[in-house]
Amino acid sequence: MSRSVSEPATHTSDQPDVYGPVESELAEVERILKSELRSDHPYVDELVRYGCLIGGKRLRPTLLLLTAKAIGEMKQAHLVLGAVVEMIHTATLVHDDVLDEADTRRHLATVNSRWDNKASVLLGDYLFTHSFYLASTIGSAWACQEIGRATNIVCEGELRQKGCRGDFALSESEYFEIIAAKTAELTACSCRLGAHYAGASEEVVEQLTKFGRDLGIAFQIVDDVLDLQGEEVTTGKSLGTDLEQQKPTLPIIHALANHSPEKREELLLLLSSDTAPSREALLPWLSEYDSIEYAYQTAKQFAASALKNLDCLEESDATNTLRLIASFVVERTR
Amino acid sequence: MSRSVSEPATHTSDQPDVYGPVESELAEVERILKSELRSDHPYVDELVRYGCLIGGKRLRPTLLLLTAKAIGEMKQAHLVLGAVVEMIHTATLVHDDVLDEADTRRHLATVNSRWDNKASVLLGDYLFTHSFYLASTIGSAWACQEIGRATNIVCEGELRQKGCRGDFALSESEYFEIIAAKTAELTACSCRLGAHYAGASEEVVEQLTKFGRDLGIAFQIVDDVLDLQGEEVTTGKSLGTDLEQQKPTLPIIHALANHSPEKREELLLLLSSDTAPSREALLPWLSEYDSIEYAYQTAKQFAASALKNLDCLEESDATNTLRLIASFVVERTR
Repeated sequence: MSRSVSEPATHTSDQPDVYGPVESELAEVERILKSELRSDHPYVDELVRYGCLIGGKRLRPTLLLLTAKAIGEMKQAHLVLGAVVEMIHTATLVHDDVLDEADTRRHLATVNSRWDNKASVLLGDYLFTHSFYLASTIGSAWACQEIGRATNIVCEGELRQKGCRGDFALSESEYFEIIAAKTAELTACSCRLGAHYAGASEEVVEQLTKFGRDLGIAFQIVDDVLDLQGEEVTTGKSLGTDLEQQKPTLPIIHALANHSPEKREELLLLLSSDTAPSREALLPWLSEYDSIEYAYQTAKQFAASALKNLDCLEESDATNTLRLIASFVVERTR
Repeated sequence: MSRSVSEPATHTSDQPDVYGPVESELAEVERILKSELRSDHPYVDELVRYGCLIGGKRLRPTLLLLTAKAIGEMKQAHLVLGAVVEMIHTATLVHDDVLDEADTRRHLATVNSRWDNKASVLLGDYLFTHSFYLASTIGSAWACQEIGRATNIVCEGELRQKGCRGDFALSESEYFEIIAAKTAELTACSCRLGAHYAGASEEVVEQLTKFGRDLGIAFQIVDDVLDLQGEEVTTGKSLGTDLEQQKPTLPIIHALANHSPEKREELLLLLSSDTAPSREALLPWLSEYDSIEYAYQTAKQFAASALKNLDCLEESDATNTLRLIASFVVERTR
């Protein structure tokens, strides 16, 4: 199960090579992560090194580096900021796993299951604070502000989501707002930083920010669908946690909006019962109005919207790979 | 029990007025905290507003503002940074209360007892990230770096402490290192920021940093003593949690070092048993070699060492108040 600490997720047959154009830069990001996430104290060292392993796909640094390469010059700041956004992402994952009481993530035991919740809370804090320190080392208050704001929006989104647990009256637009905050803000920020430090105009920076945001929304919709009907062996993480936590996600919001009033009440009872329904028990409710398919179509619309924002870029391997990622996020099975 | 959100802790008969010279600036810090810690979303809003209430003594902004006033010009940056260090402190308290499973803090229900652990984790994250965003708004990457580094050291100290639970072989010097990191780094950083932005020379900035560090160490030693023998009604928080968590603190390290080998084994068994000893059961073990008094004397030495670093300051109300705080931290009962 274990991978070496310095190894980024490699592509497999069902996944296009989205790392190719920035392979050497991603290896440098891994080196930065590895050299930053260590401690002289054995207990701390073991824990923070484990933090290197958890992120997995390295989507955010990949977006940051590809955006930079698509626009122009790759700088040292990009490599450092790639490590920063990955650290922030990992911090949110580690704290998410406490919130979700999840056991597995990327085929690895979660920190809360391998150590305990307290270790998870402190490791997440360590990663957040280290990422802010690391961001400051490039000497730009602008980067610190963009990263601080984005990360705070992520936390506000997580809090909103927590406040909405069991609230199956949540509207589609509220759902989009929440995932735009908790997930898409950091992918947007990654593209924004990549573009800005590559010397893009303000207008292009805004367009790539929008690319990252729409992509992040599409990504999260699919993530929520996989939680309902993905396979644990493929996704490599605990699934069905949204049902246990009574989180309203897009297929469920769609099903509730389409069933007859009587059926709707029945579905609400099922979703709100003390013992969460199994994923299998829920699937007939979702298939009647093609609610899973509806969610996929919606994700595709966001991915298409994301793609439009790449028209400002010149053709290159990096530009093509950004397009590939936008297609892949809605086709992925993990 | 409740206090209004904007009201800083007021001084009472057993506590000197340490706010006097910076009263109007502290009120401004409160206004900043109040205006920053809010949300358009009711669930988030209620939670983050509660975050304003928890810090209590406002020790860190007070140190930052007094240092600034003792040196020279008070700037807008000082007020913003006062709110920043208080937010960071509150974030660590909120997460500490999850770790300690504490019910009460500053006479208020802790977030984990009033909401739940998940709300505490997210509120702490919100406060950390908002503090970093707010720090960046003064436009200085130096401030972001100092704050990022200090906060990361705090987290590393917390992790080290967690790794040392049940390790009653911990030496005095390791204990000092841990509290220097988890507590004194933020008081040191507060004084450092206050001095730097008031235009102090590098040498004076270093001396005031050392003042803040020694003061923080003295403060934490006393905090640990109060956990063993303070009164909950006076301190306003759950006590005895260090024993429950098997944290080795100075009086215990001293007692273990002084008892005979046989008695030492007996004490170790008591401390390590599945059901933590009551504070009452432990006191005879601590009184035999005056271990509580030893801890107080050690705190006094750190406070005296802190005071020496104030010799570089001109006489003023602010300078005198910094001295008063150094005396007070070892005499306080809450």
